[in-house]
Amino acid sequence: MPHIELGNDAPGIRGLLRYRPDTGRVLSELAEVLLRGPSTLSRGERELIAAYVSTLNQCRYCSSTHGAAAAAQLPGGTSTVADACADPAAAPISGKLEALLRIAAAVRVSGTEVRDDDVAAARAAGATDAVLIAAAFCMYNRYVDGLATALPADPAAYTESAERILAHGYTPMPAT
Amino acid sequence: MPHIELGNDAPGIRGLLRYRPDTGRVLSELAEVLLRGPSTLSRGERELIAAYVSTLNQCRYCSSTHGAAAAAQLPGGTSTVADACADPAAAPISGKLEALLRIAAAVRVSGTEVRDDDVAAARAAGATDAVLIAAAFCMYNRYVDGLATALPADPAAYTESAERILAHGYTPMPAT
Repeated sequence: MPHIELGNDAPGIRGLLRYRPDTGRVLSELAEVLLRGPSTLSRGERELIAAYVSTLNQCRYCSSTHGAAAAAQLPGGTSTVADACADPAAAPISGKLEALLRIAAAVRVSGTEVRDDDVAAARAAGATDAVLIAAAFCMYNRYVDGLATALPADPAAYTESAERILAHGYTPMPAT
Repeated sequence: MPHIELGNDAPGIRGLLRYRPDTGRVLSELAEVLLRGPSTLSRGERELIAAYVSTLNQCRYCSSTHGAAAAAQLPGGTSTVADACADPAAAPISGKLEALLRIAAAVRVSGTEVRDDDVAAARAAGATDAVLIAAAFCMYNRYVDGLATALPADPAAYTESAERILAHGYTPMPAT
């Protein structure tokens, strides 16, 4: 049960976005530009970074939602995403993506954990985007869990979320 | 020296906002709505939450900037901000603000660290805003330190930043 009365039944961050439309609009826009705007990284790669950081932060709503969105856009689908979130070094992903997940894991602990060598190795491959996506999910995860938002029990809910994200992006959802 | 070539000399997050104007615009807008938009918390109280989380995250650029902005808007100024960032329980601040800083410290560790009792105690006093501000600075701090941005050595730089924030808010800065 959420720590606060949101006035709506939407799960996870969607309940919070409706509860506070002023901050909700900007948080949605940030997700849209980070995960779907122009970037050297594909949308699937960026969703995987979001899912991986959310997994490390043990935020089930975000890891499930962005894991489903990554699976829908990456070769190998659900199996690859599960493997990458469990252990990037052992997963069937590119060296580039493994380097980006290493940066993301460092950012999750602290910005000061990121080494110049890590960024240099992945610079041309979107290291700065990886840093900001990882940092942003350190925010979203804390907002979602800090207010103990509702967590859908049915895995189908996350598949539906992924379909909505692929079709419509992170635009604020109309009230239902 | 920053991990990446930003193409400008602006310190801290200001260099990053100019480097990536697309994400920079949204990140600026988020700071504006969180720290200066409508809220049950005063702007000084919100800046103190930002400064406190940034202090705990050992992000010197953010703690100095938002500490200066808090000092300019709170009774007791610099001394009160320094005391609150060092130990909220021993600082000359209201019980409300102490409760909000306790929530912020929990959010900094993890969203799952926030207890229902903490939020209940501070609910009417802006607990949900405190959660989101603390979460957002877990993002900003990681972005600033994750790319090893420049840190002004002269304390006057932070006073000037605070003056600019009070006068103009967090609108994106024109290139200089």
